[in-house]
Amino acid sequence: MAKITTIGFDADDTLWYNEIIFERAHERYRALLARHHERAAVDRELYATEMRNLELYGYGIKSFALSAIETAIHLTEGRIAAEEIQQILALAKEMLAHPVELLPGVREAVAALATTHTLLVITKGDLRDQERKMAASGLAPHFRAVEILSEKDSPAYERVLRRHGVAPAEFLMVGNSLKSDILPVLALGGAGVHIPYELMWQHERVESAPEGHARFMSLPGIGELSVALNKLG
Amino acid sequence: MAKITTIGFDADDTLWYNEIIFERAHERYRALLARHHERAAVDRELYATEMRNLELYGYGIKSFALSAIETAIHLTEGRIAAEEIQQILALAKEMLAHPVELLPGVREAVAALATTHTLLVITKGDLRDQERKMAASGLAPHFRAVEILSEKDSPAYERVLRRHGVAPAEFLMVGNSLKSDILPVLALGGAGVHIPYELMWQHERVESAPEGHARFMSLPGIGELSVALNKLG
Repeated sequence: MAKITTIGFDADDTLWYNEIIFERAHERYRALLARHHERAAVDRELYATEMRNLELYGYGIKSFALSAIETAIHLTEGRIAAEEIQQILALAKEMLAHPVELLPGVREAVAALATTHTLLVITKGDLRDQERKMAASGLAPHFRAVEILSEKDSPAYERVLRRHGVAPAEFLMVGNSLKSDILPVLALGGAGVHIPYELMWQHERVESAPEGHARFMSLPGIGELSVALNKLG
Repeated sequence: MAKITTIGFDADDTLWYNEIIFERAHERYRALLARHHERAAVDRELYATEMRNLELYGYGIKSFALSAIETAIHLTEGRIAAEEIQQILALAKEMLAHPVELLPGVREAVAALATTHTLLVITKGDLRDQERKMAASGLAPHFRAVEILSEKDSPAYERVLRRHGVAPAEFLMVGNSLKSDILPVLALGGAGVHIPYELMWQHERVESAPEGHARFMSLPGIGELSVALNKLG
């Protein structure tokens, strides 16, 4: 088994809290539409709109906001007031300006691993927003590079690794999404450590973890990562 | 004078048409608001909104759409109909799906220069949208990398050049914006070729070209680039 030289970290809900910001925004969005529709219908319709727009919009808060406005107009059959749409815009701006709060143990774990490994951040989402969060996190000096991708699939990981001259077998990816962080990297012959986070956007959910895969582990928190490294190579 | 080994190309309105798509969208946006306000007021207010939101939203079509909705609500004092906001969303989707049309001479010039120089695309804007346009352009095989930045200033160029191991003195940037493509590269000691395009977003305008600068040239079209290279190093 090749020795791990380089560790990639997902950002949202791996390094810092993110989904909770979306959850709170959803809650306020449901409240805004409560006089027109019940919660479940709002959630279902918003998710369907986001999936329909994903190819065109990509990920991130601006995409969420545009889909939320579209859904609100559709669900209310055009009866939503401009003032309510204004509230959706205000919600998006609040999300974009939200302070960055690191997950427990992240600061210490990243600082320690940076002394022994090359660290990358590999994330998707909106360029501007992810750069803002990285800068605000205070973690930037520990990372060789921040790679913001429009999609996290095997070809995208392969391009990142080639650019950094890292063999997949020497690469470990750490993240909260089996679909985006773990499975595409295992497929390339790399290693993956899954650190589940309690909240997960529906789009990121997959059936089951690749239990038993020699280069896969699941950990309760980032603090255990250095121990896991000894087992993975 | 160092020999140019690497050429960076701006994308929008340097490789392919872009501002015309925004101009047409603006025209339809003005028509949409015509019953409330005159053209000049709409333009002025939209631009002011975009500038106010730039730090939070960054560049690109999704940012434009969100600012256009905000402006429409503000200018009509909330009297805009949901159906009209729906039209702004439809406009944004059309812009995002717009076919990519290369500027005259681009295909030939890029193919020829790729045989003698390392070529990069260095652009700003929305990640997903720029990747879509690059893929649709058919030019991707000629470029070593596509760098999508959230802002094109000297530090951002410096990071790109460092990552690719290129000394600024050996680098030439080609683009239609003095502000984003030329001045920050000249400041690093690189060379710049300005190819003006007839349409230019207000935000990209600067006072005057650095005429007389030894490493600066202005060209009427990309076809003249190989001749200019002999003069610039």
